[in-house]
Amino acid sequence: MGEFPAVIELNVGGTHYATSLSTLKSNDGSLLQEWFSGSPDEVPRDSQGRFFIDRDGLLFRYVLDYLRDPAKFRMPAEFRERDRLRKEAEYLRLDGMIEAVTKDPGCITIGYRGSFQFGRDGLADVKFRKITRLLVHGRVAVCREVFGDTLNESRDPDHGGPDRYTARFFLKHVFIEQAFDMLQDNGFRCVGSCGSGTAGSVTENLKPGVDAEENRWNHYNEFVFLRD
Amino acid sequence: MGEFPAVIELNVGGTHYATSLSTLKSNDGSLLQEWFSGSPDEVPRDSQGRFFIDRDGLLFRYVLDYLRDPAKFRMPAEFRERDRLRKEAEYLRLDGMIEAVTKDPGCITIGYRGSFQFGRDGLADVKFRKITRLLVHGRVAVCREVFGDTLNESRDPDHGGPDRYTARFFLKHVFIEQAFDMLQDNGFRCVGSCGSGTAGSVTENLKPGVDAEENRWNHYNEFVFLRD
Amino acid sequence: MGEFPAVIELNVGGTHYATSLSTLKSNDGSLLQEWFSGSPDEVPRDSQGRFFIDRDGLLFRYVLDYLRDPAKFRMPAEFRERDRLRKEAEYLRLDGMIEAVTKDPGCITIGYRGSFQFGRDGLADVKFRKITRLLVHGRVAVCREVFGDTLNESRDPDHGGPDRYTARFFLKHVFIEQAFDMLQDNGFRCVGSCGSGTAGSVTENLKPGVDAEENRWNHYNEFVFLRD
Amino acid sequence: MGEFPAVIELNVGGTHYATSLSTLKSNDGSLLQEWFSGSPDEVPRDSQGRFFIDRDGLLFRYVLDYLRDPAKFRMPAEFRERDRLRKEAEYLRLDGMIEAVTKDPGCITIGYRGSFQFGRDGLADVKFRKITRLLVHGRVAVCREVFGDTLNESRDPDHGGPDRYTARFFLKHVFIEQAFDMLQDNGFRCVGSCGSGTAGSVTENLKPGVDAEENRWNHYNEFVFLRD
Amino acid sequence: MGEFPAVIELNVGGTHYATSLSTLKSNDGSLLQEWFSGSPDEVPRDSQGRFFIDRDGLLFRYVLDYLRDPAKFRMPAEFRERDRLRKEAEYLRLDGMIEAVTKDPGCITIGYRGSFQFGRDGLADVKFRKITRLLVHGRVAVCREVFGDTLNESRDPDHGGPDRYTARFFLKHVFIEQAFDMLQDNGFRCVGSCGSGTAGSVTENLKPGVDAEENRWNHYNEFVFLRD
Repeated sequence: MGEFPAVIELNVGGTHYATSLSTLKSNDGSLLQEWFSGSPDEVPRDSQGRFFIDRDGLLFRYVLDYLRDPAKFRMPAEFRERDRLRKEAEYLRLDGMIEAVTKDPGCITIGYRGSFQFGRDGLADVKFRKITRLLVHGRVAVCREVFGDTLNESRDPDHGGPDRYTARFFLKHVFIEQAFDMLQDNGFRCVGSCGSGTAGSVTENLKPGVDAEENRWNHYNEFVFLRD
Repeated sequence: MGEFPAVIELNVGGTHYATSLSTLKSNDGSLLQEWFSGSPDEVPRDSQGRFFIDRDGLLFRYVLDYLRDPAKFRMPAEFRERDRLRKEAEYLRLDGMIEAVTKDPGCITIGYRGSFQFGRDGLADVKFRKITRLLVHGRVAVCREVFGDTLNESRDPDHGGPDRYTARFFLKHVFIEQAFDMLQDNGFRCVGSCGSGTAGSVTENLKPGVDAEENRWNHYNEFVFLRD
Repeated sequence: MGEFPAVIELNVGGTHYATSLSTLKSNDGSLLQEWFSGSPDEVPRDSQGRFFIDRDGLLFRYVLDYLRDPAKFRMPAEFRERDRLRKEAEYLRLDGMIEAVTKDPGCITIGYRGSFQFGRDGLADVKFRKITRLLVHGRVAVCREVFGDTLNESRDPDHGGPDRYTARFFLKHVFIEQAFDMLQDNGFRCVGSCGSGTAGSVTENLKPGVDAEENRWNHYNEFVFLRD
Repeated sequence: MGEFPAVIELNVGGTHYATSLSTLKSNDGSLLQEWFSGSPDEVPRDSQGRFFIDRDGLLFRYVLDYLRDPAKFRMPAEFRERDRLRKEAEYLRLDGMIEAVTKDPGCITIGYRGSFQFGRDGLADVKFRKITRLLVHGRVAVCREVFGDTLNESRDPDHGGPDRYTARFFLKHVFIEQAFDMLQDNGFRCVGSCGSGTAGSVTENLKPGVDAEENRWNHYNEFVFLRD
Repeated sequence: MGEFPAVIELNVGGTHYATSLSTLKSNDGSLLQEWFSGSPDEVPRDSQGRFFIDRDGLLFRYVLDYLRDPAKFRMPAEFRERDRLRKEAEYLRLDGMIEAVTKDPGCITIGYRGSFQFGRDGLADVKFRKITRLLVHGRVAVCREVFGDTLNESRDPDHGGPDRYTARFFLKHVFIEQAFDMLQDNGFRCVGSCGSGTAGSVTENLKPGVDAEENRWNHYNEFVFLRD
């Protein structure tokens, strides 16, 4: 008897929300669609007449966000309640949201062996860094997702699946800032970094063609990026 | 006289919650079960008729979460109020929640002695890192929890209990990214890292079979992970 | 029939806001202007008579901020919901806000080759750092935005567009603290740093005019700054 | 005329709280006890009849927490509003709370000179770290608070007060993870770390009994911990 | 006609506050004083009769804090909305608050050249760090603000103004922990650190009086502190 109003006021675990009936019913197969397609009399209410849902009040904000526009759903950066939100999506049977929330975490480290030599051009006072290769280490699938076409896999002899880890990928360019921009775009953040000055002091037994000054300035820097 | 309604509206220290009576009574032996199994007249109310609980309003959110589904209870990542929440669980006599909140904190450091040599295969311009061992240091019980089957304990001569600290565990693989993924999965985050370039300049007295170039690039990097 | 009141009370996804009608209608072409220029009867309301908008409640705070004073609009520092906020601005057709929210992210690294020599002036116990050049690496447009007139581009031989990356810019001064102040002013934060002690031990083959003591103390330090 | 109700509803700067009268009056000498021991007519009220307190609404949450159980009072970890909360405690004359809020900040650095040698036992492929001493630096009183019985003060020749700083304490064990666990338990967090590979390349003039290989791997790592 | 009540209930952009009339009127020249000194009929109200202010609801919390006790006003640590709050203070013409919010940001780096030598006293197993000078780098005015009497400016030959940058200040003591405590007290936090092991391997050409063992352990560590 009776119908749901067009604007639905909800009491989700004590937090009040308002949304349209069409938003609530938009996801096929969800518990919300089931509840709000039946009779209003069968949905429990609080003392003010709001429809009551016995779930966490704060996380429901993101459930509504998802329902309003599933294709554009985004969680906050460095979201602390991802696991908790997935639990809500599972309970409400929002399959697309479960997938959107289950972002692939992962760790990628970027290392480079660099040289910080004197300028070659006679202007000894101007010195720039020189990076030969930007090395990429991590799970294969994650490395590919982040670096795409800029990734060089030619030196990875392992033909295993994308879930294996590799330490033999590198990039097609030598700008660590470009690599870091791409990591940031994919939700990674830098959690650690360390530099290892290595022994460039050996000048007696240099191979032919190696610049002595450049050789003195070799170092290996390593940056750890994580995605929550 | 009278019974509790099916939808219970609560005023917990000024914050309003709503939940079902069955959720509130679900935990055997808890204060909440005791309060809401008796007469509604014995539970104090606020001026709007909500049942009143004289505890912190914000933390009660997690108490309700726990009651709704104890097996799936999760705190937010890097939760700042763990100690405060445990206090609430203790007060309310929610034994299972006390245990779930009392996650074992801990510190694990990962160290590796690596070499960043030239390629052996004639392609001198492609250089990759080479890690011999990933060392694991920390309390034994915590190391086991995090690394499980990938942990090699064979070199730890100490047969003491799991509460002792060890500096002689290592991993069965050499991918630091895999180790970091496992630490992250277990709620650890990287709080510090440092690299120590060591002396590879000594080439005069190398032991037989040691590659001079590789020896030049030795370093020791150390990463500190903490779980709050 | 009827007009909007001067003070508009809103229910945005369950969160209550109040603002003036003139604020809501201030942005030409926006959905809000459209809605609140018509008849009040056509805007849905909640059960208390508040005008209802089926969007995220918390993010609407910033929408109101923008409408009150578009020219002074500022997001919080290290804002975690930038992408989510842009989605709201797009939905509401607030073009100026979309632009204000779409701040250019980016990565800049600052490196310097420094020497930490003894004092030259006979006061051997007083030693200061000596920095020859502060190197700036990153996308050209971002480097220019941050450092402006203090940036020296004279050594960048690449005449490509501002979207290319460079490793050959440096600053016109040698105070890393001034560089860091400028980075901070532009919304960057330091996410990593590493130092590479380099080989200063070679004293046999120093070029003429190079101070042996100063040469011993060479190192290369690198600082990574990101803007979210 | 009249008495306070058993459940007190408060409007603290616009935020609503509910607590019991006995909680509010529990602290001898406090302003709250004074206010709520007199006549209800003398306490100002808001338009809904709630008792009104002209202080910050959000911080009052912690005041109530303190009153409910002073002995177990805990602030959130990395609490950003400690100074602001102390101001509230001072205003309300809650002496015990002032003390609880005034946690001693401080800085402790842990340094160790380590060696990362080859194994001595013939298994050359297994290498572990070797730490001789864990050094503790900081204000004496803070070092004692954190490390208690595990602190060795025998080498500190200074017999000044506990407010002096020392750089001559060390620990009775050599597990940095145990030290970090104790720092974390006391509210410290790691804010910086750096490693200094030092010169192990000198093999010509080793003192008798010093292992050449071990000597090659010396380094000094330093970790900075702060408590807010 | 009529007067303002003693307890003022406000609707600031949808957020409800309560304060006393005297608090609202306490700041001479402010918009709030102007509004609440006239006739109540001229201040707009929401549908519940609360006085309405068309500004951000959450930031007004700090405005009230400031009005209640301007001399003790404190923002939260690492406050993310400083710029946004200043905008509110400017709009409301709270000059003292503008000043309090406009805290001087800045960057200070602390560097030290340290030695980690063997003990001199025959107890070879006890080794401590040895720091000759703690160097302070940054804008002169900021360095003075933080370190006050512990700052030694005697070696700065530049007699320019306090807005210049210096790399020639140092401290009168050698405890980095004391320096870090003072930085923390002034709102700085550590954002980066790096160590540079330098070449101590040269023993052939040591100046007279330099201890060979101590010389082997030289390093330069650098810590970056920022204030938001």
